[in-house]
Amino acid sequence: MSDKKANEPENLPPAADGGLLDRRLFLKKGLSFGAGAALVGRPFRASADEPPPWMKTPGEPFTNYGVPSPHEKEAIRWISANSAAPGNGISWTPLHKLEGIVTPNGLHFERHHNGVPQIDPHRHRLLIHGLVENPLSFGVNDLLRYPMVSRLCFVECGGNSNAGWHEEPIQTPVGYFHGLASCSEWTGVPLAIILDEAGLRPDARWLVAEGADAAAMNISIPVEKALDDAVLALYQNGERLRPENGYPLRLIVPGWEAVLSVKWLRRLQAATGPVMARNETAKYTELLPSGKARQFTFVMEAKSIITFPSPGRHLHGPGLYQISGLAWSGRGRIKRVEISADGGRSWAEAALQDPVLPQCFTRFRLPWRWNGAPLVLKSRAVDETGYVQPEREALIAERGRHGYFHYNAIVCWAVAADGSVSHTYG
Amino acid sequence: MSDKKANEPENLPPAADGGLLDRRLFLKKGLSFGAGAALVGRPFRASADEPPPWMKTPGEPFTNYGVPSPHEKEAIRWISANSAAPGNGISWTPLHKLEGIVTPNGLHFERHHNGVPQIDPHRHRLLIHGLVENPLSFGVNDLLRYPMVSRLCFVECGGNSNAGWHEEPIQTPVGYFHGLASCSEWTGVPLAIILDEAGLRPDARWLVAEGADAAAMNISIPVEKALDDAVLALYQNGERLRPENGYPLRLIVPGWEAVLSVKWLRRLQAATGPVMARNETAKYTELLPSGKARQFTFVMEAKSIITFPSPGRHLHGPGLYQISGLAWSGRGRIKRVEISADGGRSWAEAALQDPVLPQCFTRFRLPWRWNGAPLVLKSRAVDETGYVQPEREALIAERGRHGYFHYNAIVCWAVAADGSVSHTYG
Repeated sequence: MSDKKANEPENLPPAADGGLLDRRLFLKKGLSFGAGAALVGRPFRASADEPPPWMKTPGEPFTNYGVPSPHEKEAIRWISANSAAPGNGISWTPLHKLEGIVTPNGLHFERHHNGVPQIDPHRHRLLIHGLVENPLSFGVNDLLRYPMVSRLCFVECGGNSNAGWHEEPIQTPVGYFHGLASCSEWTGVPLAIILDEAGLRPDARWLVAEGADAAAMNISIPVEKALDDAVLALYQNGERLRPENGYPLRLIVPGWEAVLSVKWLRRLQAATGPVMARNETAKYTELLPSGKARQFTFVMEAKSIITFPSPGRHLHGPGLYQISGLAWSGRGRIKRVEISADGGRSWAEAALQDPVLPQCFTRFRLPWRWNGAPLVLKSRAVDETGYVQPEREALIAERGRHGYFHYNAIVCWAVAADGSVSHTYG
Repeated sequence: MSDKKANEPENLPPAADGGLLDRRLFLKKGLSFGAGAALVGRPFRASADEPPPWMKTPGEPFTNYGVPSPHEKEAIRWISANSAAPGNGISWTPLHKLEGIVTPNGLHFERHHNGVPQIDPHRHRLLIHGLVENPLSFGVNDLLRYPMVSRLCFVECGGNSNAGWHEEPIQTPVGYFHGLASCSEWTGVPLAIILDEAGLRPDARWLVAEGADAAAMNISIPVEKALDDAVLALYQNGERLRPENGYPLRLIVPGWEAVLSVKWLRRLQAATGPVMARNETAKYTELLPSGKARQFTFVMEAKSIITFPSPGRHLHGPGLYQISGLAWSGRGRIKRVEISADGGRSWAEAALQDPVLPQCFTRFRLPWRWNGAPLVLKSRAVDETGYVQPEREALIAERGRHGYFHYNAIVCWAVAADGSVSHTYG
């Protein structure tokens, strides 16, 4: 068999059952795909070259600030707001419409309690008070003069993916199931610098953060985390924050549930204990099967989702595909993502797209030859601490049936013979 | 001297003259800044806490796609279009308004020859023809089914920074001098896969790329580069391309002058030689002092610019600051950025912000204690090939006075006693 033939997908050795191929397949230089016979695109042999109508007339002029194509109107946040109080609710990042790891600012998910305050940055102030030697008040222009850091990291609502607790598998596109998670490059002032300037007293163990929205949303953060890697963010993906993401100032607490990354930040009060706010008692506290309650469950554990194929993103007949998805962990870097195409009996390691950063979305990809038979796809993330994303049964055994937050079980997609994809519990 | 006192900026050892400090200063945990005495922000001691007006009324509702705050109207692309033909010209990324390394899609620089075509993606096609075994025509939906890669990389016009060739130093904000460069996460199909499917003939040495704009902009690309790392990009920073950045399909040729990254890509014709288009003969070809001409000077050499302080971003009196800027190289990763605060006599190494990626913007930062005296700041990038960004005199000696493209000399900012910053040739 010639080298060329050996490289044709039909002749490649499997990496696991169900048609999973070696993750390096699409990375090799000079690989032959057998003149397209097995690839899933549908080009046609062509030599005609009629210029399209938009080549026959001058185009549109320059713009100061660009917007998406009018043909991409489906790539929007899906809003699930309280009809009686339209500023209370959530909007979802359409992860099924996106690629790579960066979420564009216009599509970052939202969780608001009383709408988006329209803040004049010249009048906004941040107060550092409570158990500090020097209570301080900062204007936005003051903070803009401080040393900054940038980091690409995810922000994920503690309630993301909670449809996974439902008795029946929810049937929606990926973004409306897992899209209370987004990933941006945040730039701002390390909170440690500001706390050092204010002088935390030795008995200050918690910070109570409060936003300048009409709900005065507040939450408690352990001082250790605040000093470790929390950031007073002023910029998102290069530009200043958007109003719905906390303009002009939000806290970013990397890897922890997003309720701690308080938007429109106006106060940080140092205290000996947590304030026991609504969002750490009535919410984000859950009864376990043992009768004990989980509280202050800050870290978002490792999770992964296959974004292609997925519900609504169907297969167009048997052939060679690339499985693609996202993985992340609040504990650090993603170390490995494994994919199964036989419901979990055999697993193949996916390729991780550079860069692989701590507390950041990581894009994974794996070549796959689908033979047209029904099967179940799963992905499983492992992070650098060795934590392995659990199966749903294991998560429920540990956490019981009262769960609402921190759902991170392995997700299963059932692929039917007609190429349609649905959510299944396996 | 106590540890706390030793850590106060006044007592820190210099890293170079002119007040440059060790790059790790702001990275250390538990560092004291002397209760703010030396820091440049202007917080005030405060305990008052009057809720602002926007906390007293419900905020704005959710939106399907977000936009910047109305208070950030200065963070826009600056348009320099031909008044007689408004679709011919450029618009600049306001680098002086941005932080981190990602350029938001709405602010990516533009270079158009005949405006922005309004393309219906369902009617757009890519033709692969010329010296290939199988001429092929792809629709956008065909390409969306192919294996993809993502990469964060810069796109820089070959004419960026060309005001540096002027006899007198241009006095503009950084973005209107160096802002024909932007950095995004691009996702698309490796061109090598498509070329393999079409079957390049052995005598195919160049590809002629053509856009679907009314200018039918075209350019020639060596086959080696096309097979190495060129991408048929469909996504930019997660979402589908914007119209002004090539929607629905653009070529990305990492690290090479942006004229090769053809927008609205409609044709790739394999040929034995370059097509000798306007943009590789009348433009992008330059006479050297020797009488020979430079042509096909594809790679964008290493460059760095200090974005703070910079013209229009002044200092507010003596004190401790963070110098911040961007560096990049078309040859690979940035290895080192050095900063001088004494016009080039002594240099200190800046901290490079993670991630440091090949052919990508790299953010650098360095702590600096300005004593209020006038001085000249410079930055100098070194890439992983060992290439060192040249002084202006060296660049002119090599390239002569006919230069227009590929200006990458060290940039000098003169800081005056009043804290104002101007461009100088040193």
